[in-house]
Amino acid sequence: MNVTVNGRTRHFRTVTFDARRNAVLLIEQRLLPHKFQVVPALTFRETARAIRDMVVRGAGAIGATAAYGLAQGARAFRGRDLAKFARHLETVCDTLKAARPTAVDPLNAVNFVRQALRAGQTVEEQQALALATAEEFADEDVRHCEAIGHHGAKLIRDGMNILTHCNAGWLAFVDVGSATAPLYAAQAQGRKFHVYSDETRPRSQGATLTAWELAQQQISHQIIADNAAGHLMQRGKIDLVIVGSDRTLGRTGEVANKIGTYTTAVLARRHGIPFYVAIPLSTIDWNLRSGLDIPIEERHESEVLGAWGVVQPSTLKHQLSTDLPRSQRRAYVRVANPTSGALNPGFDVTPAELITGIITPMGILEPRQLWPRRRELGCASSALKPSHT
Amino acid sequence: MNVTVNGRTRHFRTVTFDARRNAVLLIEQRLLPHKFQVVPALTFRETARAIRDMVVRGAGAIGATAAYGLAQGARAFRGRDLAKFARHLETVCDTLKAARPTAVDPLNAVNFVRQALRAGQTVEEQQALALATAEEFADEDVRHCEAIGHHGAKLIRDGMNILTHCNAGWLAFVDVGSATAPLYAAQAQGRKFHVYSDETRPRSQGATLTAWELAQQQISHQIIADNAAGHLMQRGKIDLVIVGSDRTLGRTGEVANKIGTYTTAVLARRHGIPFYVAIPLSTIDWNLRSGLDIPIEERHESEVLGAWGVVQPSTLKHQLSTDLPRSQRRAYVRVANPTSGALNPGFDVTPAELITGIITPMGILEPRQLWPRRRELGCASSALKPSHT
Repeated sequence: MNVTVNGRTRHFRTVTFDARRNAVLLIEQRLLPHKFQVVPALTFRETARAIRDMVVRGAGAIGATAAYGLAQGARAFRGRDLAKFARHLETVCDTLKAARPTAVDPLNAVNFVRQALRAGQTVEEQQALALATAEEFADEDVRHCEAIGHHGAKLIRDGMNILTHCNAGWLAFVDVGSATAPLYAAQAQGRKFHVYSDETRPRSQGATLTAWELAQQQISHQIIADNAAGHLMQRGKIDLVIVGSDRTLGRTGEVANKIGTYTTAVLARRHGIPFYVAIPLSTIDWNLRSGLDIPIEERHESEVLGAWGVVQPSTLKHQLSTDLPRSQRRAYVRVANPTSGALNPGFDVTPAELITGIITPMGILEPRQLWPRRRELGCASSALKPSHT
Repeated sequence: MNVTVNGRTRHFRTVTFDARRNAVLLIEQRLLPHKFQVVPALTFRETARAIRDMVVRGAGAIGATAAYGLAQGARAFRGRDLAKFARHLETVCDTLKAARPTAVDPLNAVNFVRQALRAGQTVEEQQALALATAEEFADEDVRHCEAIGHHGAKLIRDGMNILTHCNAGWLAFVDVGSATAPLYAAQAQGRKFHVYSDETRPRSQGATLTAWELAQQQISHQIIADNAAGHLMQRGKIDLVIVGSDRTLGRTGEVANKIGTYTTAVLARRHGIPFYVAIPLSTIDWNLRSGLDIPIEERHESEVLGAWGVVQPSTLKHQLSTDLPRSQRRAYVRVANPTSGALNPGFDVTPAELITGIITPMGILEPRQLWPRRRELGCASSALKPSHT
């Protein structure tokens, strides 16, 4: 999407490949929203480290990064010995897969590229295939997000107020995003609307990443405390909710997403407000039979007990130079009582009955339609994820 | 309630009066939870400033502080001329009333004391009456909170998990609190239970004040992100909700309270969890006919866009001495995207149908019972608030 740096607006993808330098170029997401910078990962090990250290995050984005990382590793090989090349590739694949061991996308991406390059007869052919397949993988991610935008934009009418939660934006994918895709598509079609972005405690992805995205795209928006959504709905100030999904159960239509999503869905139902979930096919889990089986990650209590932000020097008694750039003044503050602990579930599960529709690249489906249409959805999915076939 | 300072546990009220020094003694709430300190306000002007600057906050607490402030001002008068004394008292009253112009409690408190001291025939008699009436006002606040605790404790059984939102604790009153009163009473009766305290963004009173109170009273508790309450309810981990109220409509049973209260009530209803509101009688508004008529204060967007906390020096690139005491390292950090704004409604309105019961000093009532029993409730109220009679 577009980013304006020093008054100049340019299009960026979250992850791209520089074939000349054999480098993976990444938006350094840990500096956002306080600084925009594209950093190169110059070796496959640097690329793996960037995934591990969350320079890049979000399912689609780390999948594409891993795909490019494999192409990068393949292209770094010197020689014509296919057996040696195969051993080298094993190292590359293992390194990239180990970067985020619980994430499914890098795994699928690496397997997808690895599978494709077997068609090459020489090292050189396989190297070329690796890059072409990684590019195809990234382009497919973009096409799917664009398709989500195409279908989802039909839900958005002029003058609407739309609520979103967390960040399922283009930063989490290669471009466009999932929950944000309908917004960007509707904007491109000239529609005017306003977005409320839940700040999304405890990690504040709504206040940081989603708000940054919307500001860059010049979409009218305001951040609200998560606590305010119910009040705004009660006063008729929200017409539509669109969120993303970390895992969608194909059999039941249940959606696991960032903590607070379930609350938003309950509120939307009470007020008769349509609640949509935008998903790339890679989040569909065709195996689990109940949302209760989804493991809910308990994250560190420090996330709840405080916040990361840019220190405002005027509020600190201690001397802190105001000349320091914002990104240099970033720190963690402990907000909570120092002798109290916290409980910090990272995700929750929204049942199908609360979901008006699921916006997929193939169209908008009722949650219960996923299973009957699994071939159609699963086919597209299996093309991307050979590990699931 | 009890506070442990340097290993020594003592009982404190939020506000007391030192007759020898003619000083109002206040817990400096702006330093909590990072530092506990009792500060004296040595003149009625200092007392008014303490109310204005939020050294003390919370309806019951600022009411009692204003009552003591009037006694303090009266007792500072030298001479026997009743007319001059009356003029002096006008200045004292006006100063105290102006400290928090939109709050109703200081107004009622000042009127209550001012009215009572008319029974004195001399300056000296009126001075003595002023102090006695202020003490009576503060004691009545404590008795009412204790009565809320007595009635509310019956709702709490061994092993329960109880959710609360914001701070309606003893720091907001003279002692004991409203929403916390049942917890303290049940603890005194030997019951074991666990409290989840919503952090209560954007001002985080749950993470700071309520958590501090519960830790001081050694009540088992954890802070949660406001987003987590729905998930915990869904998983059967919450048995009871008790919150406070900023304004309760006597005619309809609607409750205006800290933003997010309504959301909590909607979630509780969905899961069949009892939702109680603990109220001192002073919050009852017998005039308004609809919750839609309650003005919802829009607070400054900086509350949503960042957070106040204690800077952890190890997380800041810039040098910051770790020897500085915690309260010296307190600062505001900007969390959100710097080019985004926020919408920050401070309160919301919960309809009567979502409220299981209202815990009053006179017993637990269904919300719709307030109006039929208004004489009983209003009488006690009018004794405290002559401005409403």
